[in-house]
Amino acid sequence: MPQQKWVIKNGTFVVLQDEKTLVKGYMVIEGDQITYIGEEEPQLEEGIEVLDGNNLLFMPGLVNTHGHTAMSLLRGYGDDLALQVWLEDKMWPMEGKFTAQDVYWGTSLSVVEMLKGGTTTFLDMYDHMDQVANVTEQSGMRAVLTRGVIGLCPPDVQKSKLDEAVAFARDWHGKADGRITTMISPHAPYTCPPDFIEKFVQASIDLNIPMHTHMSETRAEVEQNVKDYGVRPVEHLRKLGVFSRPCLVAHGVHLNDEEIQILADHGVAVSHNPGSNLKLASGIARVPELLKAGVTVSLGTDGPASNNNLDMFEEMRLAALIHKGVSGDPTAIPAAEAFRLGTEYGARSLFLDQVGTLAEGMKADFIALNTDQAHFLPRTDFISHVIYSASAKDVEHVWVDGKQIVKNGSCLTMDEEKIRSEAQRSFEQLLAR
Amino acid sequence: MPQQKWVIKNGTFVVLQDEKTLVKGYMVIEGDQITYIGEEEPQLEEGIEVLDGNNLLFMPGLVNTHGHTAMSLLRGYGDDLALQVWLEDKMWPMEGKFTAQDVYWGTSLSVVEMLKGGTTTFLDMYDHMDQVANVTEQSGMRAVLTRGVIGLCPPDVQKSKLDEAVAFARDWHGKADGRITTMISPHAPYTCPPDFIEKFVQASIDLNIPMHTHMSETRAEVEQNVKDYGVRPVEHLRKLGVFSRPCLVAHGVHLNDEEIQILADHGVAVSHNPGSNLKLASGIARVPELLKAGVTVSLGTDGPASNNNLDMFEEMRLAALIHKGVSGDPTAIPAAEAFRLGTEYGARSLFLDQVGTLAEGMKADFIALNTDQAHFLPRTDFISHVIYSASAKDVEHVWVDGKQIVKNGSCLTMDEEKIRSEAQRSFEQLLAR
Repeated sequence: MPQQKWVIKNGTFVVLQDEKTLVKGYMVIEGDQITYIGEEEPQLEEGIEVLDGNNLLFMPGLVNTHGHTAMSLLRGYGDDLALQVWLEDKMWPMEGKFTAQDVYWGTSLSVVEMLKGGTTTFLDMYDHMDQVANVTEQSGMRAVLTRGVIGLCPPDVQKSKLDEAVAFARDWHGKADGRITTMISPHAPYTCPPDFIEKFVQASIDLNIPMHTHMSETRAEVEQNVKDYGVRPVEHLRKLGVFSRPCLVAHGVHLNDEEIQILADHGVAVSHNPGSNLKLASGIARVPELLKAGVTVSLGTDGPASNNNLDMFEEMRLAALIHKGVSGDPTAIPAAEAFRLGTEYGARSLFLDQVGTLAEGMKADFIALNTDQAHFLPRTDFISHVIYSASAKDVEHVWVDGKQIVKNGSCLTMDEEKIRSEAQRSFEQLLAR
Repeated sequence: MPQQKWVIKNGTFVVLQDEKTLVKGYMVIEGDQITYIGEEEPQLEEGIEVLDGNNLLFMPGLVNTHGHTAMSLLRGYGDDLALQVWLEDKMWPMEGKFTAQDVYWGTSLSVVEMLKGGTTTFLDMYDHMDQVANVTEQSGMRAVLTRGVIGLCPPDVQKSKLDEAVAFARDWHGKADGRITTMISPHAPYTCPPDFIEKFVQASIDLNIPMHTHMSETRAEVEQNVKDYGVRPVEHLRKLGVFSRPCLVAHGVHLNDEEIQILADHGVAVSHNPGSNLKLASGIARVPELLKAGVTVSLGTDGPASNNNLDMFEEMRLAALIHKGVSGDPTAIPAAEAFRLGTEYGARSLFLDQVGTLAEGMKADFIALNTDQAHFLPRTDFISHVIYSASAKDVEHVWVDGKQIVKNGSCLTMDEEKIRSEAQRSFEQLLAR
């Protein structure tokens, strides 16, 4: 089959390279790739499909680098509680009852929300990952999937969980036309004994895939690590060999200068989850310092029960706002940097080198925002408007791998109405079970 | 003319009184008032107009208690700059060129954004206030309007500005079917000499209207006040008699315990502007402490150039999130309290006793959100969903004084397309002038 070729004209495209931020003109897509972007009208075959991009702002799809999407089934089930009460009385008892079916519907609900809100790639760390992979494949979305393993269990259960994580990672890596890649994930230093974490490092080497884990999310966790192992989590994971692998850690809220330097030296990426960290009162990550040290920082929503939505525009805005407010420096995390956190750096954090920017040769993962609205006026600075004024619901169209997934705000690949009703039913059944 | 009477059935209504948060059932509106709200079907005349509220969440319209709406013309014109650079190089030179016409279009742009986003009442402090009043009257919105006066000028100019502020307040108070009320506003302690502020206190007494002013927004401003007058701004304004009047201050970021107590003792309300305070790196107001002391706190967007949108859902969410993250207490500002900040306490801050809640006898200022969307599921806790998951664009319908102003996301009272194009043109002309 020949590669389908089509063109966008009259578009405004966010390129964010060096001094150039916008290109007004044309973008050509062939199959799953962007093959041209520029002001000059390209030479095109007769009868080629043309999309008029007037009043649309085209930008790379957003990249959500940390989450547990099936937890959308618990959105609003427990809020404004102390962390341990929230976990022990609310989340864990309900999650313990989750079936594969629940994960399927919870993930579907989240995937619909993410796609319609302009997120084209997400990382998911959870259980029943085959279901998450199925939803990803059906939806047309791009994903980095990983079975998150809690190792506080007997050795035989540890082994079967690790085997399951390895089998999932092997079976699904590169599937769905390459849209799915995998990682290997011990849940956290405080939920996995050191020797168990070392087995994940070995699996990461054997499978030649990156590692992902939670790290230094709360102050208590850091203190406990020192008590249990004599070192803080960063040094602990470094000693276990985790940072010898390509690695993305989630949160990294409580880091000292030395730890930031260790992350930078080892090329460890950090998924900053500002909404979740604020809501759970975990603290405020030292993002300006991480970026200054050369650490790749990206953005994650975390699970929808601790956020409570999957709006990546909101995460970009929070990242741009809170570090100014807390540091007292209004130049901290300017709009363009917040934009990169949600796009380019997100792709880099997930070790995906063909998404995250609009450029020739990149995968055609992109979105279009309706800019013919009051909050996008005047037309001063579209990067500023995206970061400080836009929201998920400004997204009009979404393409992944060159295929349109969302058109005029509706998801073309998923049965939204059925998903809403099944997600609600799943929650009611969980309550009753 | 008889009062038009109509009813909503199958609705979910946010009442937030004592333990009760939702009523499922009916709401009857007669003219500009809510006359019934309850589960029981009311006895109604034949042929009465009925709205089916299925899949809609009805809540009080949001109340934005501090802003300079015409500054939407400068949205994105300068961001991520140090405060003085932003003011001196960007805002002031442009604002100096604002004509009455510019204020008309800038305010119109903001009013459209606010109405469509579920804000039914706003406070505006600016110049050319007749224009703001005209827009308010035409739009059907409710507003508290006040000419903000900067007193760094010769006595004769001071006098003419004060006269203008007084004339505006007198002429427009109670106009537009009572939807417009007025206040009297010295801009700030650092922009008005003490004797000039005292004249505003006298005007407030003479006109029998409340006072509004900026106060303690930045640390530098507090330090300057001590240098100039020997006391911090709270004590300064107290001594000048400002707090002997009904009074709303904007920001109140830098307050010590003693100052919080003075505000509580004098019944001074505080408009908390979290988005603006973060973006301008002013700091983080001590909202949990203010509320604990019994101070009425409400929410404002501030001007759209320092926010950069007018989404009050975002301000409620920021208020709920940042104080948790900064204090380390996940129970700080729970969802219901954030909801009250944006509604009930907003009305109280503006000395409006008939709006801010849904109840019999209250003005029919209310909005309807479309809850048949992924991010409102499952149906666990609608207050949580409003605070932690919703955005301006979930608003489907808006009524003010019983009249529908927004229907299916479109503004019925304003020519949106014309406003967008005139606002853009105004900005371009400002640049060229």
